[in-house]
Amino acid sequence: MEEMFAQRMAAVPRSFIREILKVSLDPEIISFAGGLPNRKYFPVSGIEAAASAVFAESGADALQYNNSEGIAELKEIIANRYREGKGIDVPADSILITTGSQQALDLVGKVMIDEGDAVLIEEPGYLGAIQSLSMYGPKFQPVPVDEQGLDTEALAARAHDTNAKLLYTVPNFQNPSGVTYTNETREKVAAVVKEKGIVLVEDDPYGELRFCGETRKSFYHYCPEHTVLLGSFSKTVAPGFRVGWLVAPAPLYDKLLIAKQAADLHTASINQYILAKYLQDNDLDAHLKIIINAYGEQCKAMVAAANACLPQEVKLWEPEGGMFLWGQLPAGYDAMELFEFAVREKVVFVPGAAFYTSEKGKSTFRLNFSCTEPAAIEEGMRRLARAFEQYRQSTACAA
Amino acid sequence: MEEMFAQRMAAVPRSFIREILKVSLDPEIISFAGGLPNRKYFPVSGIEAAASAVFAESGADALQYNNSEGIAELKEIIANRYREGKGIDVPADSILITTGSQQALDLVGKVMIDEGDAVLIEEPGYLGAIQSLSMYGPKFQPVPVDEQGLDTEALAARAHDTNAKLLYTVPNFQNPSGVTYTNETREKVAAVVKEKGIVLVEDDPYGELRFCGETRKSFYHYCPEHTVLLGSFSKTVAPGFRVGWLVAPAPLYDKLLIAKQAADLHTASINQYILAKYLQDNDLDAHLKIIINAYGEQCKAMVAAANACLPQEVKLWEPEGGMFLWGQLPAGYDAMELFEFAVREKVVFVPGAAFYTSEKGKSTFRLNFSCTEPAAIEEGMRRLARAFEQYRQSTACAA
Repeated sequence: MEEMFAQRMAAVPRSFIREILKVSLDPEIISFAGGLPNRKYFPVSGIEAAASAVFAESGADALQYNNSEGIAELKEIIANRYREGKGIDVPADSILITTGSQQALDLVGKVMIDEGDAVLIEEPGYLGAIQSLSMYGPKFQPVPVDEQGLDTEALAARAHDTNAKLLYTVPNFQNPSGVTYTNETREKVAAVVKEKGIVLVEDDPYGELRFCGETRKSFYHYCPEHTVLLGSFSKTVAPGFRVGWLVAPAPLYDKLLIAKQAADLHTASINQYILAKYLQDNDLDAHLKIIINAYGEQCKAMVAAANACLPQEVKLWEPEGGMFLWGQLPAGYDAMELFEFAVREKVVFVPGAAFYTSEKGKSTFRLNFSCTEPAAIEEGMRRLARAFEQYRQSTACAA
Repeated sequence: MEEMFAQRMAAVPRSFIREILKVSLDPEIISFAGGLPNRKYFPVSGIEAAASAVFAESGADALQYNNSEGIAELKEIIANRYREGKGIDVPADSILITTGSQQALDLVGKVMIDEGDAVLIEEPGYLGAIQSLSMYGPKFQPVPVDEQGLDTEALAARAHDTNAKLLYTVPNFQNPSGVTYTNETREKVAAVVKEKGIVLVEDDPYGELRFCGETRKSFYHYCPEHTVLLGSFSKTVAPGFRVGWLVAPAPLYDKLLIAKQAADLHTASINQYILAKYLQDNDLDAHLKIIINAYGEQCKAMVAAANACLPQEVKLWEPEGGMFLWGQLPAGYDAMELFEFAVREKVVFVPGAAFYTSEKGKSTFRLNFSCTEPAAIEEGMRRLARAFEQYRQSTACAA
C-alpha cells in the first residue's frame, strides 16, 4: 500500500517526543520531558458547574450542529480579553474558533502553502508547527532564536533571499527555548514583515503565564493586517476541550473559514458552550494567578537546582513565563547521548535537535517545569548532574 | 492578498447549502433543505448524567491532553457495536477517533491524494466529501448512483480508464439520494475494488437509522483490506460532540494517525469520556428505536403528501432509512429555478446540482424529513406544489 500514499506523507517527521513520553510512563522516572499543563490546576468543579448550567439552559442547542465560525458568546469573551488584557481591538468577527490552536496551524498551512513555498520558522521551533506545516510541502527557512527573540538580521536576509510568504513565531515564552521577544525585536520583525508582504503567525499559547518581567505588545499592535494571531484555552483552562482560536485579516479569514468547514465542519458546540459559561461565571485572571504562582515557583526551583548541581559550562536560559527552560551543553557534547545516560539515572528531558529543521542544535535540550514539584525537581536535577558526569567521563575515556 | 493563497483554494466549491441555511432562518419558511438530526431526540438528560459522572470520577483525566488514537473505552464500544450489530470483527486498534467523520474525510484526502489523482465519487455525492477532498486537488471521476446503488459497469469502466486510487461511497441511505446499495451491487463494487487495488471509503453516518427493509453487509465484510469505514455519533447521539471514527488497514492507519496528530493532536478528551460513559450507562438501541420511528413516520408523511400534491411527472425515490428523499423534475425543468418560486411560497429544499461534480443533475432535488413534523410536511408539500405550478406556467408563457 506504501506506493499509494500522497507524496506529502514522506516529508513529515516522526515525533521523537512521543517516544520519550512512552519512556516517561515508568513511575520511577522524573520527567522534565513533558509539555503538559499541570492537571492539579484544572478548574474541574467550575467546569462541572458550567456544564450543568449549559445542559439545563440550552442542552439541545449545545448538542446540535453549529456554524463554522464558532459561537458568538465565546468570540466576544476572547475579544474582550484582548481589549482589556493586551489593549488591542480585535473584532469578534475576525475570530475563528478552532479545534485547538494546532488546527489553526493546519488551516494556515492548507490555505497558504503550495509545495516548495518558503516558510520562515524559528530555530529552534515548535515541533507541532513543523509537523502540521510539513504536510503542505514547504521549504522551511530557519531563522535563529536568540535571547532577544529572533535574529532580525538573519530574518531580513532570509526573507529577502527566499521570497517567503509566511513567518511562524511563538514570541512569548517560546516552546522550546522559553525566550520572549523584546519590544525592539518585535518592531524590527514587524518592519520586515510589512516591507516584504509576509503573513506572520503569532502563536501565543503561553502568553498569559508570565511570572516576571513586563507584558510585551502583540504583533497585532504593530502590523494587524499582516498578523494571524493564534490562541488557546489549553494552558489557561484545560487542553481536553481542544478549543483554540485564530484571528485573521478579512481576505485570509474567508479562506480559512472554507478550510475549517472542510476540516471538521465546526469545533464541538458543547465545548464552546461550556467554556463560554465557565468564563462568564468565573474570574479567569484569579485562576491564572494560581497557575502562574505555581509555575513561577517551580521554574525558580529548577534554575536554583541547576545552578547548584550542574557544572558551570552547562548554560541555561531563564524564562519570564511559560513552561520551559532551555539548556546548552558545552561544545562537542550531544544531548541525545546525554539522554541515554539520563534514562539510566531515571530522569528524562527532550534533546533539542528535535526542534531544529536543520542539522544544528545537537548540544541543546529542553526542560519542562510545569508538572513537577520543587522537591522532585531538585532530585531530578541531581540525577541529571550524575548523568552528565558519567557522559563526560565516557567521552574522556573515548578521547 | 489573493495572490498569496495556495493554489488548492481556487478549486474548492462554495457551499450553496450554507446560503440556503441563511434563507431558512425566516421562521415562516418550511425547510426541507436542512441536513440536521432532530434536536427533539437528543438524549440531553442521559448525557448530562454521564457528564456529571465523568467530572466526579475522572475530571482531570478527561480535561488533560490524550493520545491521538482516541480513548480505549470508546474504541471498545465501537468495536462491540460492529461485532454485535453488523457481525464484523473490527479490532479496536484499527479504530481512530476523529473530530466528526468530516475530519476522517480530510485525513483520508491528506494521506491519499496527490494533485491530479483520480478519485471515484458517487454522482450525486455528499457535498462535504467533495469539499474536503477538493482541498487536495483530485480529478473527480463521477460514477452514477441508481436505485440499486451504483452503476457498477460505469464504475468498472471509470476505474479502468483513470487508474483511480480511491472510491468514496455512502452505501446506506445515501446523502443526497437516500439510496441503499443492494447486496449484489456491493459484491460487484468489492470485486472492482479488489481487482484494481482501490481504497474504498464506506462513509456510514446513517446506517443505524433503518426504518424498513433488511440490513445490508458492510464492505468490510467483502474486502476489509481495501476498506476505510467511517462512522459517527452525530446522527445517533448528537452532532455537537464532533466525535466520529475511522477504521483502516494497518499501513494506512499509521499514516492517518500522523495526519491526525498534525491536524488537531487528538479529538477532545472530555467528549470521548462523556460519550463512552453515556454509551456504557444507556441502551443506545432503545434510543435509536425512538429516532427511527419518528423519522420513518415523517418519511412516510412526506411521500404521501408528495403523491397527493405533486404532479405525477415529478419522480421520487423512497428511502429505507436515513434523513433524505430524492426527487427528479420532468425533463427540461431546473430545480434551481424552481427554488426561486419555492422561496416566495415559503418552502425550501436543496437543488440537486450542488451534489454533482459535473454539469448534470439540474432537474434533481433533495428533501429532508428528519426535522419537520408530519403536519408541517403536508403544508410544505402543498407550497412546493404551488411553486411548481407557478414555475410550469412561467415556462409555458416563455415557450
